[in-house]
Amino acid sequence: MVGSMTVSVNSTPPVDLYASGVHHAELLPASDDDHGGVIVEMKEPMDPDMFHAKLRASLSLWRQQGKKGIWIKLPIALVNLVETVVKKGFQYHHAEPNYLMLVYWIPDTPSTIPANASHRVGVGAIVLNDKREVLVVQEKSGKFQGTGVWKIPTGVVDESEEIFMAAIREVKEETRIDTEFLEILAFRQWHKSFFEKSDLFFLCMLRPVSFDIEKQELEIEAAQWMPFEEYAAQPVVKNHDLFTYITDLCLAKVDRNYTGFSPQPIRSLLNDQISFLYANVSDLNQSSSADRP
Amino acid sequence: MVGSMTVSVNSTPPVDLYASGVHHAELLPASDDDHGGVIVEMKEPMDPDMFHAKLRASLSLWRQQGKKGIWIKLPIALVNLVETVVKKGFQYHHAEPNYLMLVYWIPDTPSTIPANASHRVGVGAIVLNDKREVLVVQEKSGKFQGTGVWKIPTGVVDESEEIFMAAIREVKEETRIDTEFLEILAFRQWHKSFFEKSDLFFLCMLRPVSFDIEKQELEIEAAQWMPFEEYAAQPVVKNHDLFTYITDLCLAKVDRNYTGFSPQPIRSLLNDQISFLYANVSDLNQSSSADRP
Repeated sequence: MVGSMTVSVNSTPPVDLYASGVHHAELLPASDDDHGGVIVEMKEPMDPDMFHAKLRASLSLWRQQGKKGIWIKLPIALVNLVETVVKKGFQYHHAEPNYLMLVYWIPDTPSTIPANASHRVGVGAIVLNDKREVLVVQEKSGKFQGTGVWKIPTGVVDESEEIFMAAIREVKEETRIDTEFLEILAFRQWHKSFFEKSDLFFLCMLRPVSFDIEKQELEIEAAQWMPFEEYAAQPVVKNHDLFTYITDLCLAKVDRNYTGFSPQPIRSLLNDQISFLYANVSDLNQSSSADRP
Repeated sequence: MVGSMTVSVNSTPPVDLYASGVHHAELLPASDDDHGGVIVEMKEPMDPDMFHAKLRASLSLWRQQGKKGIWIKLPIALVNLVETVVKKGFQYHHAEPNYLMLVYWIPDTPSTIPANASHRVGVGAIVLNDKREVLVVQEKSGKFQGTGVWKIPTGVVDESEEIFMAAIREVKEETRIDTEFLEILAFRQWHKSFFEKSDLFFLCMLRPVSFDIEKQELEIEAAQWMPFEEYAAQPVVKNHDLFTYITDLCLAKVDRNYTGFSPQPIRSLLNDQISFLYANVSDLNQSSSADRP
């Protein structure tokens, strides 16, 4: 009411300031993405009513501009704005502890919004020394806590971490042993390990380059070099498919000619960043003269 | 004030009904998880004030009971309850389009809340027929839209889907060609492909068992069997590391003795569900007589 009285002083016809899209002070701060969409990263607190007005005006403008996917990132401190965004038709896309990402697909065509992350990635590290002893630990928490079972070091691959770097890091963190990465011997996929997500577990073989164990206090109950046969003779190892495969793969690698995948640096398609391709490099590099002219 | 007057009518001393934990009607519906925690799956709408009171009472009870991780799953329709949960100290854990999962760690000890999913998983499918022709497509969207580049079928592995099943499915969806899975030839990891998440891309080799192409209308502009040398001679294939590796790996498989990883069914550690281990099965099964007594 107060607003319309103010406008009546002016002689120009009333216009929809929000829809006109020219009053940038009334729009949310946004930047274009590479796929015809827009990203809004909210950082500072905003009054929910003002946020609602700006969001409405911005959506109207983006619609006129033919924008596709609209992303809004809300830090958890701005949780009071989540409801406003959802009521405008946004869906959740993903969340991390301190923020929530929402997305809205404007066009009538099918959405090409990328899928959310679906997998966690883990590593297990077989570290065998020249005396055929394997580096093993007992963990302070988890499935085998308090059971006396000795297992190889394992851990989660962090976001943006290379698999082979994660294996080296986990061994170092748990035991202070330095290693060189040799190969991925195998990997295993399994499903619904937590909620609807899946896990990929990469079994890695590493060569130790230091030998004095110093166990990590927080997570590790005990750590040692254990004769391989003693490790393999544990009932839990003999009775479970995955553990049996781990020992079989280790023996195949050490005593026969088993070849896994090793990392090869390659340049990215889009920029010159280096990433890694994991392949059977010895087979790939072997050029059979019989097949060549 | 009204409340305390009502209580004064009664002769029993005032008690904190919420903290006592015996008035189940005042608690949120919850079930125990396998890790000493509790899961609340909210399904029906609830008045925010009532929700707040029940959450407070429930947290008090769980604290007394020594519960650890508290999970609350809120469907997007109950977005009006999110702020209440966050104000009680919960963090976001993950989100999917239609729900948000929040978590709170009660103990003073370090949290063992599992990490969120960090990777998306994709597949590329090399399908080669007996005439050394490779199954290729042109996509209606994406990086190569409108460029005339022919590429192998690719796609995203769904949550809870096996990698080898995803490769078979993508080929079928895009071209109607039926295939048998042979091997994973290699995989590639790269980072920050979308926001902070990483991608794992598995290059698969499949054998066609049907040959009449019928392209999918929605995503595929064109599909054909293309002589392998013609595919490999495309400038984009020759000029990019990843594409060059794809052709090298394909030739190594077809013309030499390249061995990748193939899926082996294994039983789960916890239940008898079948999952798959991917390994160099021919190396694993080969028992070199020289090494055996």
